[in-house]
Amino acid sequence: AFPLNFSDLESAASKVIPKAAFGYIRSGAGGEETLRINTTDFNKLSIVPRYLNDVSAADTSIELFGRTYPQPFLLSPVGMLKLAHEDAELAVVKAAASHQVPFIQSTVSSFSIEEVSKASPGSSKWFQLYWSNNENISYSMVNRAEEAGYEAIVLTVDTIMLGWREEDIRNSFSPLKEGYGKANYINDKVFLNSLPSQDDDSVIQAILTNIFHPALNWKHVEELKKRTSLPVVIKGILHPEDAKLAIEAGIDGIIVSNHGGRQMDGIVSSIEALPRIAKEVNGRIPLLLDSGIRRGSDVVKALALGADAVLLGRPYVYGLALGGQEGVEKVLTNFKQETSVSLALSGAVNIKAAKKVTLTL
Amino acid sequence: AFPLNFSDLESAASKVIPKAAFGYIRSGAGGEETLRINTTDFNKLSIVPRYLNDVSAADTSIELFGRTYPQPFLLSPVGMLKLAHEDAELAVVKAAASHQVPFIQSTVSSFSIEEVSKASPGSSKWFQLYWSNNENISYSMVNRAEEAGYEAIVLTVDTIMLGWREEDIRNSFSPLKEGYGKANYINDKVFLNSLPSQDDDSVIQAILTNIFHPALNWKHVEELKKRTSLPVVIKGILHPEDAKLAIEAGIDGIIVSNHGGRQMDGIVSSIEALPRIAKEVNGRIPLLLDSGIRRGSDVVKALALGADAVLLGRPYVYGLALGGQEGVEKVLTNFKQETSVSLALSGAVNIKAAKKVTLTL
Amino acid sequence: AFPLNFSDLESAASKVIPKAAFGYIRSGAGGEETLRINTTDFNKLSIVPRYLNDVSAADTSIELFGRTYPQPFLLSPVGMLKLAHEDAELAVVKAAASHQVPFIQSTVSSFSIEEVSKASPGSSKWFQLYWSNNENISYSMVNRAEEAGYEAIVLTVDTIMLGWREEDIRNSFSPLKEGYGKANYINDKVFLNSLPSQDDDSVIQAILTNIFHPALNWKHVEELKKRTSLPVVIKGILHPEDAKLAIEAGIDGIIVSNHGGRQMDGIVSSIEALPRIAKEVNGRIPLLLDSGIRRGSDVVKALALGADAVLLGRPYVYGLALGGQEGVEKVLTNFKQETSVSLALSGAVNIKAAKKVTLTL
Amino acid sequence: AFPLNFSDLESAASKVIPKAAFGYIRSGAGGEETLRINTTDFNKLSIVPRYLNDVSAADTSIELFGRTYPQPFLLSPVGMLKLAHEDAELAVVKAAASHQVPFIQSTVSSFSIEEVSKASPGSSKWFQLYWSNNENISYSMVNRAEEAGYEAIVLTVDTIMLGWREEDIRNSFSPLKEGYGKANYINDKVFLNSLPSQDDDSVIQAILTNIFHPALNWKHVEELKKRTSLPVVIKGILHPEDAKLAIEAGIDGIIVSNHGGRQMDGIVSSIEALPRIAKEVNGRIPLLLDSGIRRGSDVVKALALGADAVLLGRPYVYGLALGGQEGVEKVLTNFKQETSVSLALSGAVNIKAAKKVTLTL
Ligand SMILES: Cc1cc2nc3c(=O)[nH]c(=O)nc-3n(C[C@H](O)[C@H](O)[C@H](O)COP(=O)(O)O)c2cc1C
Ligand SMILES: Cc1cc2nc3c(=O)[nH]c(=O)nc-3n(C[C@H](O)[C@H](O)[C@H](O)COP(=O)(O)O)c2cc1C
Ligand SMILES: Cc1cc2nc3c(=O)[nH]c(=O)nc-3n(C[C@H](O)[C@H](O)[C@H](O)COP(=O)(O)O)c2cc1C
Ligand SMILES: Cc1cc2nc3c(=O)[nH]c(=O)nc-3n(C[C@H](O)[C@H](O)[C@H](O)COP(=O)(O)O)c2cc1C
Repeated sequence: AFPLNFSDLESAASKVIPKAAFGYIRSGAGGEETLRINTTDFNKLSIVPRYLNDVSAADTSIELFGRTYPQPFLLSPVGMLKLAHEDAELAVVKAAASHQVPFIQSTVSSFSIEEVSKASPGSSKWFQLYWSNNENISYSMVNRAEEAGYEAIVLTVDTIMLGWREEDIRNSFSPLKEGYGKANYINDKVFLNSLPSQDDDSVIQAILTNIFHPALNWKHVEELKKRTSLPVVIKGILHPEDAKLAIEAGIDGIIVSNHGGRQMDGIVSSIEALPRIAKEVNGRIPLLLDSGIRRGSDVVKALALGADAVLLGRPYVYGLALGGQEGVEKVLTNFKQETSVSLALSGAVNIKAAKKVTLTL
Repeated sequence: AFPLNFSDLESAASKVIPKAAFGYIRSGAGGEETLRINTTDFNKLSIVPRYLNDVSAADTSIELFGRTYPQPFLLSPVGMLKLAHEDAELAVVKAAASHQVPFIQSTVSSFSIEEVSKASPGSSKWFQLYWSNNENISYSMVNRAEEAGYEAIVLTVDTIMLGWREEDIRNSFSPLKEGYGKANYINDKVFLNSLPSQDDDSVIQAILTNIFHPALNWKHVEELKKRTSLPVVIKGILHPEDAKLAIEAGIDGIIVSNHGGRQMDGIVSSIEALPRIAKEVNGRIPLLLDSGIRRGSDVVKALALGADAVLLGRPYVYGLALGGQEGVEKVLTNFKQETSVSLALSGAVNIKAAKKVTLTL
Repeated sequence: AFPLNFSDLESAASKVIPKAAFGYIRSGAGGEETLRINTTDFNKLSIVPRYLNDVSAADTSIELFGRTYPQPFLLSPVGMLKLAHEDAELAVVKAAASHQVPFIQSTVSSFSIEEVSKASPGSSKWFQLYWSNNENISYSMVNRAEEAGYEAIVLTVDTIMLGWREEDIRNSFSPLKEGYGKANYINDKVFLNSLPSQDDDSVIQAILTNIFHPALNWKHVEELKKRTSLPVVIKGILHPEDAKLAIEAGIDGIIVSNHGGRQMDGIVSSIEALPRIAKEVNGRIPLLLDSGIRRGSDVVKALALGADAVLLGRPYVYGLALGGQEGVEKVLTNFKQETSVSLALSGAVNIKAAKKVTLTL
Repeated sequence: AFPLNFSDLESAASKVIPKAAFGYIRSGAGGEETLRINTTDFNKLSIVPRYLNDVSAADTSIELFGRTYPQPFLLSPVGMLKLAHEDAELAVVKAAASHQVPFIQSTVSSFSIEEVSKASPGSSKWFQLYWSNNENISYSMVNRAEEAGYEAIVLTVDTIMLGWREEDIRNSFSPLKEGYGKANYINDKVFLNSLPSQDDDSVIQAILTNIFHPALNWKHVEELKKRTSLPVVIKGILHPEDAKLAIEAGIDGIIVSNHGGRQMDGIVSSIEALPRIAKEVNGRIPLLLDSGIRRGSDVVKALALGADAVLLGRPYVYGLALGGQEGVEKVLTNFKQETSVSLALSGAVNIKAAKKVTLTL
């Protein structure tokens, strides 16, 4: 039977994904302490539910940037989905569409913005941007996403360089170097024009050069805001001071995230970082969270601590590996179901009520 | 030899109960985190015992709704006891009677109110009500219990819909759908009259429709109070605010419970929830607790934190599975013995003194 | 080689002591949670050592009731030592003497006061009293100890009835019923005169009847004080209020103890109970501690939290099992050595300094 | 492949180092609780990283006693490195030199000051002093180090006597007694002149006599300061009061250390001790830390809590065992790389910024 919970999903996926690729997806940076607390920190929090509340008119929908979604979750950007399944983003975007869940496409996706857009024209899609040192490549990708009907730009700020990932070093596995994740680059005119030559090696070398961008700073954010009419969301905020700066910079939304524990080991879990950021943001812009969301109760806890919605990463990637589009749909069906039950049994008739649920340490 | 402690009871029972039924009994909702803390949270509390106290006149009796019981514990309502043993509630009620322990019969019991009553006419029995959407069925069952000499109505408020139980989904096991637990319905005239047809499928479908009752709210409680002269106890309270509302609604007793961790994962353990509720209730009505009671020291801790008595769930179900009525009696004999010793060795000569025992974190 | 640390001692001993007897010695009451925290609670405390302190004149001696001992530890009373080794108390008292460590003999020892005294005439011995319901038996034993040159009476107050010991119930093992531990009774005239008949069964039955003494209270303590000129020490105090009452009753010393976790599960560890009691006692009478002492660092921690000395239980019993008198001596040699090094490396040149060592949680 | 992280390093090293020697290197004092918390206490701390910070001009260099080093770490003094590899200190000092990392040579090294100095003349070397009861031997060694171009004296104060090391007792392993670690003594005229006879036994006996120095105190420190023009660093401080005395004594630097958990079990981890000491020192003199540093994130945490640099112990010893000089270099290459990435991904462009990184418990 199709696995129900995360640990079963993960172990089933480990049997169908080749070893090094599985290691890339599963693992975290360094000693995987942050990966570990991403889930265990949820367990430290307990919900104090309310009853006799009449939740028969349960409504789990959220509104984000003017659009309504039936569920309070999105799909996190995950690069190079071909590592998990041939159909990669095409399968995921269709599964997401079937549940009216927004899909965030990665810069380093296996299919290009245009291909993904074509596969699921009507559905809600956001584009995740990894900055390019050649800024014009960044703006070009953003423009392509805008033209393809994407509805938001997600700027990931925690990956200015690759984390220290021992599993990948051990497996000598570097997907970008093996040619994964280049679809958006080789379909980008600005990128292609910037190349001395268009052979595979030059392309890969140029991607590597562009994607290592330690200089990224708030000036780039300001310029990005000018270059697009789409809402700009920053992904990877963990410090309340950065949340403050983001709002000052006119950012439209924040994703509290530690990149699923993949970038820097020893950093705070996103659920632990959330309350201080929520206090800073204070409802002024949408606040999302990912890294470690595995169950309906995690959704309740994140909402209760101030998130407006959450994002799923590895769970849907494992669903993809196990069954392509259908696999992702099954994961989403289960997650949707558990989330609804969890909200109702916490006494929350809707998302606004969920944000008032009592937690205790 | 008959197993002494819970983990031995559980593992012995796992060998005599069929797999899916055992999974149903043992398991908790979601990731079973609440099931887990139900017991581990007791371990975080330590008793600071008193000595040289003269406990030779030890008295472990309690008074509830005008009746005195020799032990400070009751039997929690557990549905479909035929899953554990053919004799089901009939065995349990007789075992309870032999120890003068009140038995709370579930709405979804394997034998009807009338059958249970007949099996043990003189003993103390309470009736646990799962609300029916067709309110008249609820009132009808309550009236039947009252007529059969039951002494209290326990309204369970945490099961407005079924929790997310992965073990059961994995085993494709739904006891209600398999026809377990219908005795009280098929013996209820109001229920039967409400049916389009009385074949098995219609009965089961009607039970499922009635038992999913997310609309339950305080208005129903008020009406229930009017419909019965028995004390009404609410089972499943975890939030002090709900305790306050219960008292305002004229409720006669509260059972702090998370349904043995079976309904909603990620919620607070009942022992952690207890102190704040005890503070709110402040002795105005009886305060009971279940979920995770396994030993005499747990009883002392619950009393010290404000409970007037506790309830046992799975321990007696496993006793039932292992030896029918006799098995339940053995579990009760051991539990009674350990409870008495624990109270004496904590320095408490009676239950009133137990409520003053010092705990330390 | 002879085992160095507790876990090696315990596992070696488990191979030479018969199963039920080993279970009796090793186990704790109930779920053994208190047994477990007796050692793990020490690990929660960390010493913050001082250096450059000149500890070349290290002095680990203590003074108790006018007598000086070279080491800050004693041997706890342990009943029925024949369960561990034929030579029982005779071996232990001689080993203790060779290290100038006071030996506390149990009421239910395998050899009588007079036999033990004869085996090691000059050394420091205390007598531990289990109260007898027939008070004259209690006073008679106390008088015998006094006459035999014992130097203190230790009244154990936490064993008014036997704890709930599952290991022994499982093994159907009750050493008193099997005739162990009667030496002090069958050599006591008052006891013998109280018997209807002197056959084995009557003796054992009378011991069981006398040793179950839930009525013990402060009045008995006051009377005991009158009946002996020896210092009276109460063993088993865990609540600061009881420490206060002990001092008011004129008691000469206190042993903070939970009986090695054998009497009541779920109660506080003695090291956690110590600071509040030390605050109450405030140096007015000697304050000792047992239950969980396993290493030199435990001694430093207990002293730093206010104890004047500590007692060893199971460690020496396992030494006895492994090598009789010589086995106990080896345990003491190692413990002495580790204690000295630990005091020096904490920066404490003597016991007074040890009581000022900084701890941090 | 060459192992990446500490646990792989340790298990690989266990296969190439003889059992007793490996036990000597790996183990901690007593029950190894301090050894354990040395690493787990780092995991209790979480970094709250900053982003969008422009870290392209990353600079991980530090300045110590007027000299600049490219990395914020040094190599801890480890005695008798021949236990790990024939080339011992000669390999390590050259590996350290190749990375411009200062090497601290132990008093009980396998090669003498002069040999080590000759092997790597230009590189930065410090000399770690174990006090000799014959003070002139201490001063003589210090002078030899000064003449050989060593740049600081590190006085270790936590080893006035050997800790209680069960692994070594079990293995009957005492490297000093087996003749390891005497190079600095047998090349020291003052030491040789102090001997009655120069045979092996006399040498070893004299080393043992001199190295047991419980009388060490602040007077010796004051005298030492007078006898050398080099900066004097005290290694082993854990109590803020000792840090205060060190500064009053004119000490030039402090290493917060518990000797890798090898000396006294049950004492505080160095990372837990750090903040109070940093508060006391308040930047007046360099503050270093070792014991438990395993990863780049540990470096960030130590700097954030007030250290100016950290030291590595066992990690490089295992590298030495696995590959001599090259093995040490590989360990340093990896550690350097992980440290750089960790600083950048915490948002710290240099060490000064690292000291302002936010941590959360
Ligand atoms: C295999 C993999 C690839 C990822 N690629 C990207 C990416 O390209 N861009 C990005 O912003 N985040 C990326 N992430 C991080 C996810 O967006 C998300 O933050 C994370 O997976 C959430 O944590 P979870 O996996 O615990 O749910 C990736 C995560 C994984 C597991
Ligand atoms: C198999 C099973 C069935 C149960 N059925 C009911 C029920 O019908 N009604 C109800 O109020 N509670 C029901 N409960 C919950 C118990 O009343 C009680 O709250 C719980 O078992 C107490 O926790 P414990 O099992 O840890 O002692 C059930 C519990 C179990 C284990
Ligand atoms: C086998 C055994 C028998 C004991 N018998 C007695 C006894 O007769 N009287 C008494 O006061 N304490 C008795 N104790 C408790 C010890 O005096 C002491 O409190 C305890 O062993 C200390 O804990 P430790 O074993 O963890 O060191 C006994 C303990 C053991 C293990
Ligand atoms: C095998 C071994 C030998 C050591 N010898 C010395 C020594 O001679 N002098 C000294 O000051 N510290 C000595 N130390 C302690 C180290 O300098 C350092 O404090 C410790 O190893 C740091 O902890 P870590 O191993 O967890 O990194 C030794 C440590 C080890 C593992």
